[in-house]
Amino acid sequence: MQKRSPARYCAHAACGKVDGFAEPALDVLSPAVIRVDARTGFAHPALALGLPALDEAARVFGVATLAIGNSYACGSLGYFVEELAERGLVALMFANASPSIAPHGGKVPFFGTNPFAFATPRSGEAPLVIDQSSSVVAKVAVIDAHERGATLPPGWALDADGQPTTDAAAAMAGSLSPIGGYKGASLALMIDFFAGGLTCSNFSFEASSFGDCDGGPPRTGQFVIAFDPLMFSGLKFVDRTETLLTAMQSEPDVRVPGTRRTDARRRNQAGIAVPTALWESIQRLAGDRAVMPGEGTEACI
Amino acid sequence: MQKRSPARYCAHAACGKVDGFAEPALDVLSPAVIRVDARTGFAHPALALGLPALDEAARVFGVATLAIGNSYACGSLGYFVEELAERGLVALMFANASPSIAPHGGKVPFFGTNPFAFATPRSGEAPLVIDQSSSVVAKVAVIDAHERGATLPPGWALDADGQPTTDAAAAMAGSLSPIGGYKGASLALMIDFFAGGLTCSNFSFEASSFGDCDGGPPRTGQFVIAFDPLMFSGLKFVDRTETLLTAMQSEPDVRVPGTRRTDARRRNQAGIAVPTALWESIQRLAGDRAVMPGEGTEACI
Repeated sequence: MQKRSPARYCAHAACGKVDGFAEPALDVLSPAVIRVDARTGFAHPALALGLPALDEAARVFGVATLAIGNSYACGSLGYFVEELAERGLVALMFANASPSIAPHGGKVPFFGTNPFAFATPRSGEAPLVIDQSSSVVAKVAVIDAHERGATLPPGWALDADGQPTTDAAAAMAGSLSPIGGYKGASLALMIDFFAGGLTCSNFSFEASSFGDCDGGPPRTGQFVIAFDPLMFSGLKFVDRTETLLTAMQSEPDVRVPGTRRTDARRRNQAGIAVPTALWESIQRLAGDRAVMPGEGTEACI
Repeated sequence: MQKRSPARYCAHAACGKVDGFAEPALDVLSPAVIRVDARTGFAHPALALGLPALDEAARVFGVATLAIGNSYACGSLGYFVEELAERGLVALMFANASPSIAPHGGKVPFFGTNPFAFATPRSGEAPLVIDQSSSVVAKVAVIDAHERGATLPPGWALDADGQPTTDAAAAMAGSLSPIGGYKGASLALMIDFFAGGLTCSNFSFEASSFGDCDGGPPRTGQFVIAFDPLMFSGLKFVDRTETLLTAMQSEPDVRVPGTRRTDARRRNQAGIAVPTALWESIQRLAGDRAVMPGEGTEACI
C-alpha cells in the first residue's frame, strides 16, 4: 500500500496508472443516456464533459443518466452531485473502486468501498449532500491509523481470516467491514453493476489498486442519474424538502448530513492555512513542466 | 402495535387505512416519467398499472421512472424489481414507510425502515435480487421477538433514550438501529426524498402507522427506476454479470444474495404446506362477501 500523498494523482500520471493527457469522448446513446469514455484518464474531465449534457437531458425528460467508463478514482462524489443540485436537479451517483470489502461469507477483498452520493436542492441553502461508502469507514481511515501505529475502533475492519480486528496491520492484510454486514456487501455489489457493468468498465475485482502504481489503469466507472423535481412534483418539491428537514431537527442533537462541510466552507471563506512544505510541493507540481508517464516520478512523490 | 396477522391487509381495508376499491390513475409526466396515483389504495394495483408503462419507456429511452403516490405498504419490493429483471431490465426501487428509525443524533423514530431493492437479469437463472431495509433488521423481527418474550441480539435496536438495547419491550418503545449508524439514517433520508418527495406523497414522519388502524391512510410512496442494459452495454451486460458472480463465488462460503429465496422456490414447486387454521382464515377472507370500510372487521382479525 502506497503512502498517501497530496501528489498521488501526479505520481499515478507519471507511472501510467492514469493518462493525464487523455481526451474523454462523449456519446449520446439515447436522448436520456449519455456515455463518456474517460479513455483511462482522470474521471474529472470526463465528468466535466458529461454533466452539462446530463443536466440538459434531465430537464427535457425528467430523468437522465451519465455513464462514465474506463476512468480512474473521481475523489469525492459529493462534489459532482452537489453541482447538479445547485442547478435544481436531484442527483444520485455510484462509483466503484479497487477491492477492499469481502463478499458476505468471504474473507478476500472483492468489492471496492463502492460509494454512493445523493444531492437535492434546498431553499436559500447549499444543497443537501449525502456521500458515503459501502464500508463502515473509508480505506484512508485504516491507512491513517496504520501509519500512526494506532489501534482501530471495533467494527471497522476484518483480518485475513474474516474475523473482526482492531489491529491496523491485520486490517491492512484483511478487509474493510461493510455497513450492516451482508447489507453493505450487497450495496457494494449493486454499485458494481451500475459503475462497472452499465458503464462497460472493470468491476471492482478486476480493477488494479487505486493505492499503488502496479497493474496499469484501473478502468473503473462512475454512474450518475439526474432527476428534474419540477417534472415530478413542481415547485412544491423544495418546500417539502424544507418541511422534512425542519421536522427532522425538532430534536436538539440531530444533524443534517453535510452540515460540518457547509459550516467549514462558511468559516473558511477568507482562505485556508496550508503548511509551507505542502504549498511548495503544490507549486512545484503545478509548474510548467508537464509530467509525462515514465518521467518525473521523483518530483511527484 | 397491532399483532401481526395474515389478514392485516383485510383489517386495514375494513378500518379505512387503505381503500380496497380504489382505482389507481396513471399520468405520463414525460416520455420517461410515469406517475401513478394509488388514491389511498393498495400499492399492488398501482404497480400493476405502472410497471408495463415503465418497461416500455425504459426500452425506448434506456432509463425511465415510475413514481407511485398516495399508496400503502407494497410488501416485498423484490417482487416488483424481479418482474422487471425477468423482462431483461435492471431495476432499482425505493419505498418509504411509517416511522421506525431515529435521525442521527435523535431518539424518536422519524424514518421508516425505508427499503431499497435492486434486480438484474441473469443468464439461464432467476434474476439476482437485493431487497433490504435501511435498518439492521425489519421491524417484524423485533415484533416477533416481543411477542415471543425473547431477547434481541445486540445491534438490532435502541431504547427510548437512544441507547442500544436487547430488551424487546424497550426496543418497541424506542427505535430500530440503522445500518452503519449515521449511514443507514442518511440512506433512509435519501429514500424519503425519492419515495415521499418525488412522488408527492407523505414523508415517513407524516405517515400514519402501517401497524394499526389509527390516523387514516399513510399516503406513502414507491419509486422505481428501470434501465435497459442493451442501451448501455449491449448483449455483453449479462455475460459480464455472470463473470462477476462466478468470480465472487470463488471462495467456498460466499452466497449470492437471494439464493435462499430461489432455492426455496425450486424446492417448493409442488406446493407449500399451510396450517389448517391459516387456510380456513384465507378461505373465509377470500369469500364472496366484499369487505367494505367500516364493516367486517371481526371476520378480518
